[in-house]
Amino acid sequence: MSKEITSREQDYSQWYNDLIIKGGLADYTAVRGCMVIKPYGFALWENMRDVLDKMFKDTGHQNAYFPLFVPKSLFEAEEKNAEGFAKECAVVTHYRLKTDPNNKGKLIVDPEAKLEEELVVRPTSEAIIWSTYKGWIQSYRDLPILINQWANVVRWEMRTRLFLRTAEFLWQEGHTAHATKKEAIEEAEKMLEVYADFAENYMAMPVIMGIKSPNERFAGAEETYCIEALMQDGKALQAGTSHFLGQNFAKAFDVKFSDKENKLDYVWATSWGVSTRLIGALVMAHSDDDGLILPPRIAPLQVVIVPIYKGDEQKGMIDNKVNVIIKELKDLGIRVKYDDNENSRPGWKFAQYEMQGVPVRIAIGARDLENNVVEVARRDTKAKTSVSIDGIAFYVKELLLEIQLHIYNKAKEYQQAHITPANTWDEFVDLLDNKTGFISAHWDGTPETEEKIKELTKATIRCIPLNNTLEDGKCILTGNPSTQRVLFARAY
Amino acid sequence: MSKEITSREQDYSQWYNDLIIKGGLADYTAVRGCMVIKPYGFALWENMRDVLDKMFKDTGHQNAYFPLFVPKSLFEAEEKNAEGFAKECAVVTHYRLKTDPNNKGKLIVDPEAKLEEELVVRPTSEAIIWSTYKGWIQSYRDLPILINQWANVVRWEMRTRLFLRTAEFLWQEGHTAHATKKEAIEEAEKMLEVYADFAENYMAMPVIMGIKSPNERFAGAEETYCIEALMQDGKALQAGTSHFLGQNFAKAFDVKFSDKENKLDYVWATSWGVSTRLIGALVMAHSDDDGLILPPRIAPLQVVIVPIYKGDEQKGMIDNKVNVIIKELKDLGIRVKYDDNENSRPGWKFAQYEMQGVPVRIAIGARDLENNVVEVARRDTKAKTSVSIDGIAFYVKELLLEIQLHIYNKAKEYQQAHITPANTWDEFVDLLDNKTGFISAHWDGTPETEEKIKELTKATIRCIPLNNTLEDGKCILTGNPSTQRVLFARAY
Repeated sequence: MSKEITSREQDYSQWYNDLIIKGGLADYTAVRGCMVIKPYGFALWENMRDVLDKMFKDTGHQNAYFPLFVPKSLFEAEEKNAEGFAKECAVVTHYRLKTDPNNKGKLIVDPEAKLEEELVVRPTSEAIIWSTYKGWIQSYRDLPILINQWANVVRWEMRTRLFLRTAEFLWQEGHTAHATKKEAIEEAEKMLEVYADFAENYMAMPVIMGIKSPNERFAGAEETYCIEALMQDGKALQAGTSHFLGQNFAKAFDVKFSDKENKLDYVWATSWGVSTRLIGALVMAHSDDDGLILPPRIAPLQVVIVPIYKGDEQKGMIDNKVNVIIKELKDLGIRVKYDDNENSRPGWKFAQYEMQGVPVRIAIGARDLENNVVEVARRDTKAKTSVSIDGIAFYVKELLLEIQLHIYNKAKEYQQAHITPANTWDEFVDLLDNKTGFISAHWDGTPETEEKIKELTKATIRCIPLNNTLEDGKCILTGNPSTQRVLFARAY
Repeated sequence: MSKEITSREQDYSQWYNDLIIKGGLADYTAVRGCMVIKPYGFALWENMRDVLDKMFKDTGHQNAYFPLFVPKSLFEAEEKNAEGFAKECAVVTHYRLKTDPNNKGKLIVDPEAKLEEELVVRPTSEAIIWSTYKGWIQSYRDLPILINQWANVVRWEMRTRLFLRTAEFLWQEGHTAHATKKEAIEEAEKMLEVYADFAENYMAMPVIMGIKSPNERFAGAEETYCIEALMQDGKALQAGTSHFLGQNFAKAFDVKFSDKENKLDYVWATSWGVSTRLIGALVMAHSDDDGLILPPRIAPLQVVIVPIYKGDEQKGMIDNKVNVIIKELKDLGIRVKYDDNENSRPGWKFAQYEMQGVPVRIAIGARDLENNVVEVARRDTKAKTSVSIDGIAFYVKELLLEIQLHIYNKAKEYQQAHITPANTWDEFVDLLDNKTGFISAHWDGTPETEEKIKELTKATIRCIPLNNTLEDGKCILTGNPSTQRVLFARAY
């Protein structure tokens, strides 16, 4: 099974696709740029969603649901936002099909059913949400509004890749309304920290928290905060963003509130989101040439048990023992499956679960039973150990924690080894081509320079790290004065 | 607060809208026919969804996610299904907007960005899912496929009503694939039972399980099973459907499998769904003229505690006691809120939580503290009791069970009292107009007669109850022979 996966060295991009398809996470569909998230991939997304959802609720947010469609006149109200997304909007123009009079059994769009106003399929929901908030906000007593939405959105991308860039994707989008600028900025920063916490402690994926340069800012935002992760090919991936939107949307939709002194002011806003793109990041951050490596805390299956036996008698004895072990594991909250499917050999199963990144595999045979042991294999290091059945559940619980930590530490070491300072242009280009990763370099702060660097090298400013050290220097490209280094990288 | 609700007697339809809007469940939006589900309404939906999701998983189903868009050529593949939904399809025809050259700051649909093939926004997903299953099914070993999807769908309804009929709604749709007809029928029936279990035991809403007449069958199904509920105005509401689809979709998408003898056959299918419409049903089944009445098992909030005090000292003492009570309640898994907002009076709060249907209200004042009691009010009967603080949590837990049961029993009595046999046409019409509810009457089994009855009375056959008693009789309209009574009603 694992032989079918293209190696990273051979073709990194094909390796990624192989993992997604053969690991059973997703599949292509008949709809251009749209994927199906298969049960195994969706179970992973559910685990990620449930953790995030709890984090949002613990920080005072509530879920709600707003319409899929945005009437064009609302969509264009905040001009920068509209301009940023106009080029990738799916547009509903008609509300009925009818039988094709020239072609029995076929349908055509009914020209009589043209909408008076076209509807944009939401690429993001600021417009529809702020047009709704207008009806909900009169006074400071109505604030803050702390709402999150789990939804599908559509952005008509020309080049799509499973999870990383699909025309339709699933995400959550928080949309909050505040009485003061300070409170809104604090909210945007708080949610960035929630994302970083989630990425590091659940996805085992180290990230750098920072601020985007104006070129890379969300359309309609005053400030975009981001977390940036590093993939194994040395390219960066934006894993989540949190935006301070100022009063831009409040002004576009005329949303004012009266404060305690009865003065009217526009409402302050944030929005923040992560998407199924995170699954792409997760896959690329940890996996190897034999398949997926999933961190135990969010893995759909944490443990798989495979019996090795000849004949019904051995099978019966193994079953009895396994039932006890499964109960013990479940009592500790561990997600476990017993795969005694008779149609596949153990070796095939081993390869299959390796491919799917199940963190721990337990094999149990007749001789193991005699010795009261099982063979425990961890997916991350491939190490195998013979472990006593007595206390096996606690052993596995500890092992899952250790695997989680080990996956994180490995990724963290890789990240740390791939943040490299560059002080000359030649050095910068050489590092980008030959070492890859984040390059820490001085930049003169102008959009023109950033644009020029992108043209020349395909590298962009991933972020200006939060709490960045100030340091006088000269821009890597222009030699103009600079006060701090920023992080460049080629990126997904 | 409650004074603002229109009474059922005065205007049942306005009463319903008042409950939805003033109860904070949903709101209108700028998008025709689309609502926003507000946090309180969404929390209710989350509770319903979580229970159903567990029921689906417990019966062996997994979640997945399929595309929002269905290319027109796939949509029209199963002709009956396509014909059934063609008239209410939102259609995406373009994938880009551009700046209006004649109108600065405005956008127009870019005529250059016309799609080669139009995309239908899914009104239901059989087509896209079966076109995908084709790639997944070769042999009996690939069967059954037991997949569910939680998603938004769009049906362009001309007359919309909050929750009951909206252009976009949220739902789940199960789509299963089987090797035999028998297995598919068993699946469709099993899921109907899951729905009935959920409606009765969680929503406290009695339902009748039955089969639809051909006129009311899902487009593309061989058999449609349904659960039918009764609202307080005597109208029926279809609360969930489960379809045996035969081999219709397998034939439309050429999905065959080889059986154990290596013979090729088309795959058998089911689909089944319930939607946010259930919230409309829930509201109408139980509520009264003072607001919502929500069954405790799915109520977002089960208990609200309101302090009654003068001055900080009393407040401090009450707070201390309430903190203990809240901990005890939460330890029993009870969803509780302490509303000590200083900006509202207790009376206002009482009315507000009555409006929102919180099952139990606890009021606690300084004199209560002295007597070591609280006042417990139940929303369903409005009964108030003074209860000792010692053991209050267990008392409340029992009370919540009692309320759940009481709400169910009340609705059940109403339902039972509104299933009335009619033996003549005059009786039939009189019952429909003056008693309402389900009318049990003989029908000659023809679509023409059903159509005629609908024309004359607006009543439809809601279902042929499962395990119906066979009984010779004469059709209520035509006098032609009939072998069983069916249930007629006017319906939502």
